[in-house]
Amino acid sequence: MMNQTVQTLLNHRTIREFTEVEVPKKYTQDALEAAIHTASSTGMQTYSMIHVSDPAIKKRLAEIGGQEYIARIPELYVFIVDAYRNAKISEEKGEDLPAKYDMDRFFKGFTDGSLAAQSMCAVLESYGLGTIYLGSIKNDVEATIEALKLPKGTFPIVALGYGYPNQEPQMKPRMPLQLRVFENEYKSYDNYLEAIKDYDQEMQTYYDLRDTNRRVDSFSNQVVTILKKASPKRSDIVRSIQKQGFDLKL
Amino acid sequence: MMNQTVQTLLNHRTIREFTEVEVPKKYTQDALEAAIHTASSTGMQTYSMIHVSDPAIKKRLAEIGGQEYIARIPELYVFIVDAYRNAKISEEKGEDLPAKYDMDRFFKGFTDGSLAAQSMCAVLESYGLGTIYLGSIKNDVEATIEALKLPKGTFPIVALGYGYPNQEPQMKPRMPLQLRVFENEYKSYDNYLEAIKDYDQEMQTYYDLRDTNRRVDSFSNQVVTILKKASPKRSDIVRSIQKQGFDLKL
Repeated sequence: MMNQTVQTLLNHRTIREFTEVEVPKKYTQDALEAAIHTASSTGMQTYSMIHVSDPAIKKRLAEIGGQEYIARIPELYVFIVDAYRNAKISEEKGEDLPAKYDMDRFFKGFTDGSLAAQSMCAVLESYGLGTIYLGSIKNDVEATIEALKLPKGTFPIVALGYGYPNQEPQMKPRMPLQLRVFENEYKSYDNYLEAIKDYDQEMQTYYDLRDTNRRVDSFSNQVVTILKKASPKRSDIVRSIQKQGFDLKL
Repeated sequence: MMNQTVQTLLNHRTIREFTEVEVPKKYTQDALEAAIHTASSTGMQTYSMIHVSDPAIKKRLAEIGGQEYIARIPELYVFIVDAYRNAKISEEKGEDLPAKYDMDRFFKGFTDGSLAAQSMCAVLESYGLGTIYLGSIKNDVEATIEALKLPKGTFPIVALGYGYPNQEPQMKPRMPLQLRVFENEYKSYDNYLEAIKDYDQEMQTYYDLRDTNRRVDSFSNQVVTILKKASPKRSDIVRSIQKQGFDLKL
């Protein structure tokens, strides 16, 4: 028998259209509390969240993401790496420590912030809300940094939008566990197309609501399509991390 | 009224000592299924998991992490960025696409893998198990890469250990929401030590079980201590990412 947590998480699907019913404040409060109670590396809590309620900023994020529906998402939180706060705390303690903006800080914040986002997501979905992660805020990460006035030592991770769903998309099929979980060491396959054959086929039975119920392609074809249209700007992310004051140590 | 998901997540604490009672296979299975059903950027599922059951490898990770208890954790999964699988799929499709190992792939995998880890963690805790995240597998990330035989295009994110708790640690206090959640733009404080005063004090009432019930320091003192003992090896992580075949584009 499955408990509510398992049911909630197994039932995840991305929601892109929402009703106008307001999200109860209690739900957001519980979700944020769950987020900050998630595990955090050495307890340093090297991340923060920005609630985007200003329609002009939502619109800007929609432009950056190239997805007009972003402007209409009822609730939107951006998770960011935040090494700035602890850097300032150490400075006020009279210390100027080079590690304050090192890449270990960055990755601790990036991991912690992602874990926290998923706790928030789980709570929201457990209350019957629909959620969407927006990686598209990194399509032009420097524009996002500017829109949210992010100081040195901070960096966008991902945004989480939510509200009451106004669509009921199909569950998206996942690559089965045996291809994703290995025993003691990495396992590669001699023939991936053979190994994912059933999944490739299953993927073609899934209808993606994004493009008016267009049938989607096989997984392997999607992989090629997505790699072909890769964004030069997005692949340039390390330079933007450096611009935010992090020491790459190269 | 709080539902089970909220209760589970608000009740999180790190567990470092476990009983010898075996974890039911169903719990692991449900947790892994929840993990792979978590949101994934453009559905690419650019991450994998390695179940570490071999005592020799657990011992090696304990050495790398400098934490002997790692060798005794009943169940241990390492989450990794995995751009290798989709790279191979695209190659079998006759394509050699430069984006296959770009940093956008890396960060998509890193975010997706972290989100998935937290779904797994939530399910495990909802079943009454205790969990521990191990960022320490990155103390010497190249040694971890070798121990798990990780190929090009893959990279360790974090490990998640679990089992039945054999200790009952106190909840670790968190920095309050008003210091972590900002409205529309980043908010910095003129005086952080003043802003975190109550939290600093609260932290001193918390007993950390790691060092035989030693009282921990204030948060601001911990920040300084941790930045002072920062690891040069850990701050060198970008070079290790490059060694795994990712194109930094610098």
